[in-house]
Amino acid sequence: MNIHELIAELREPAKSKIVLLVADGLGGLALEPGGKTELETARTPNLDACARDGVSGLSIPVLPGITPGSGPGHLGLFGYDPLEYRIGRGILEALGINFPVGPKDVAIRGNFCTLNADGIITDRRAGRPTTERCVEVVTKFLRTITIPGVEVFVEPVKEHRFVLVFRGEGLGGHVADTDPQNVGVPPLAARGVDAASEKTAAVANAFIAKARELLKNEKDTNGLTLRGFATYPKIAAFEEVFGLKSAALAVYPMYKGLARLVGMDILDAGQSLGDQIATLRKVWNDYDFFFLHYKYTDSTGEDGNFPGKVQMIERLDAVIPDIRALKPDVFIVTGDHSTPSKMKSHSWHPVPTVLVGEMCRPDGLTEFNESACRVGGLGQFKAKYLMMLAMANAGRLGKYGA
Amino acid sequence: MNIHELIAELREPAKSKIVLLVADGLGGLALEPGGKTELETARTPNLDACARDGVSGLSIPVLPGITPGSGPGHLGLFGYDPLEYRIGRGILEALGINFPVGPKDVAIRGNFCTLNADGIITDRRAGRPTTERCVEVVTKFLRTITIPGVEVFVEPVKEHRFVLVFRGEGLGGHVADTDPQNVGVPPLAARGVDAASEKTAAVANAFIAKARELLKNEKDTNGLTLRGFATYPKIAAFEEVFGLKSAALAVYPMYKGLARLVGMDILDAGQSLGDQIATLRKVWNDYDFFFLHYKYTDSTGEDGNFPGKVQMIERLDAVIPDIRALKPDVFIVTGDHSTPSKMKSHSWHPVPTVLVGEMCRPDGLTEFNESACRVGGLGQFKAKYLMMLAMANAGRLGKYGA
Repeated sequence: MNIHELIAELREPAKSKIVLLVADGLGGLALEPGGKTELETARTPNLDACARDGVSGLSIPVLPGITPGSGPGHLGLFGYDPLEYRIGRGILEALGINFPVGPKDVAIRGNFCTLNADGIITDRRAGRPTTERCVEVVTKFLRTITIPGVEVFVEPVKEHRFVLVFRGEGLGGHVADTDPQNVGVPPLAARGVDAASEKTAAVANAFIAKARELLKNEKDTNGLTLRGFATYPKIAAFEEVFGLKSAALAVYPMYKGLARLVGMDILDAGQSLGDQIATLRKVWNDYDFFFLHYKYTDSTGEDGNFPGKVQMIERLDAVIPDIRALKPDVFIVTGDHSTPSKMKSHSWHPVPTVLVGEMCRPDGLTEFNESACRVGGLGQFKAKYLMMLAMANAGRLGKYGA
Repeated sequence: MNIHELIAELREPAKSKIVLLVADGLGGLALEPGGKTELETARTPNLDACARDGVSGLSIPVLPGITPGSGPGHLGLFGYDPLEYRIGRGILEALGINFPVGPKDVAIRGNFCTLNADGIITDRRAGRPTTERCVEVVTKFLRTITIPGVEVFVEPVKEHRFVLVFRGEGLGGHVADTDPQNVGVPPLAARGVDAASEKTAAVANAFIAKARELLKNEKDTNGLTLRGFATYPKIAAFEEVFGLKSAALAVYPMYKGLARLVGMDILDAGQSLGDQIATLRKVWNDYDFFFLHYKYTDSTGEDGNFPGKVQMIERLDAVIPDIRALKPDVFIVTGDHSTPSKMKSHSWHPVPTVLVGEMCRPDGLTEFNESACRVGGLGQFKAKYLMMLAMANAGRLGKYGA
């Protein structure tokens, strides 16, 4: 029995409310031996109060030693086994620009490239066009392309990158990249490994041929390559699994996209933490579950900006009382993975997590950080189990067996 | 997706070096309530320094409560799920005497026994012959036996025990023991449960018939029984899974054998820790991964020799600086299981483990022992995940998902 079947069996209705606050890339590392992490350095009286009132631990996003991308990191927190549910690159790219991908879609990452007279790639990034130029070429040329039997969507992303989506029946996603990863050779033809994917490959090749014709007189952006073909993952809706009417309050498209993937309502949560909290207050009565996403703990970590990450943690800490003032039955603060400034990247290190609820078993911690969470009452646990703890603490899970 | 598929997908090349130092049976128990374990009693300044510099935890060899043999204990540490990969008794016996078993082999544990004139077993151990006598009977008689279509190898082990190996195509390993486990009855005929194993059984029965004829005039050692028929396990090579060129530096044949099983290079590492370290220095530039095995923490534990185990731990501690002087990127000290002197046997207790690497998250521990590791940053983890942590800390695992 997988965990979703178990939850489906044990789920009980309740009026309780759960807030999941995800500080992206929350976990960190000290810069020096014996030093403090970003979270240990930050002054966080309100997160520390959560540690005092609640129960803490360390979340393992996927498995020990495995560094997750944003997709698997969030799927785990949403209660989906990230090794079971996989989100292909093309789908993630589409989610990242807020394109509403759906179950009939194959999403693909496209790159403009430069071809010489013989069709040989001379620049895999088409001379790094401006994003404005990308928008222009997509709008003027690629959007005019039609392929019989499927809907075609083309969206500019940034510089030489765009997203291509084919929508139709029976389109497979197992299509090899047309990007040869090298200059001095022509782009490859799309090829599928099964019948459904062959259908997608045929559509892709028709698209490429039309694009080549339309772009032939363009300077630099006269060719394209396609990568990361991906179908929409088959994924049970969050409400169906957990019985929670859920809202996502995120600022960045990627996280809205990930929440949309599991069927959460995507609210317009503005552009700042303040906006997100204001939205949360406004819709408080309309939902059971609220996913709040905070990006800046990750982006400062990715930049290797230790003091910046400390500051962003303190900024997050400052809004905690506003959230707790709404009296959620269960309030969780965690991250989808660690992003130590020291590494300037996502990492595998387990993530500080605190759960506050009336029926939790407090563990005597007085601080919220990596060191304190290490000895917290939640122990080290796989992220995919966090939703089960949330449900239990919210009085929404009945007894297993008699 | 199993962990090997995951690692194959995420693996990245690097120049980093990993040292895995396995102190066999490392974990222990206090003799008295409130007392100290062997490791807590030993003076271990250098292991304590590892605890200060690194991150510690407790390794669960198989599952809570499960006491592993040497085979599963090491497979876990090598990153193979010991519940998925099983090493049959015959194969383990062959590895233990350094016989180079291979994929076409069925290895079997043989016992000399004494038969009366009616072919009834009167002594299951043939009067406990000396090992010299065992060598003599094997050499003079059993090694003369040939069976058409297969190669036959017979190796003396000790006293009444020998190893028998059939090498050939299509030999199965599901053959029941011929040892009836009782005196007063004749040995059983070998019987296979499937066609391939029937083939092995036929070979075994032919071998037994020829042996009976050759041994008929011997005193005591005039019969034999066969147990633990086992084929060579299908196991992906360590280098194939982890991309690590690996060397085993072990003194005892069993551990060389286990390392050979996963395809490590077996180096001549001499007869002592000093020899092993000298070999390590010599081959340092030739490998990415080094497995060092230290036997005496286990053998003293098996003997119930608490002070002896303490002393052997201190002897191991003394060479730690020599290993760290080579500056491995990741240095791990652990055990394949616990062997508490109090129990005089392997046990299920989780095993103290420390990992030192630049990107590990130190946990403030200042000692390396069972009590300290209990609150270490690695938590309690299954041994099979240790290699993933090693790979991550060595910069050899990329991001999972985007």
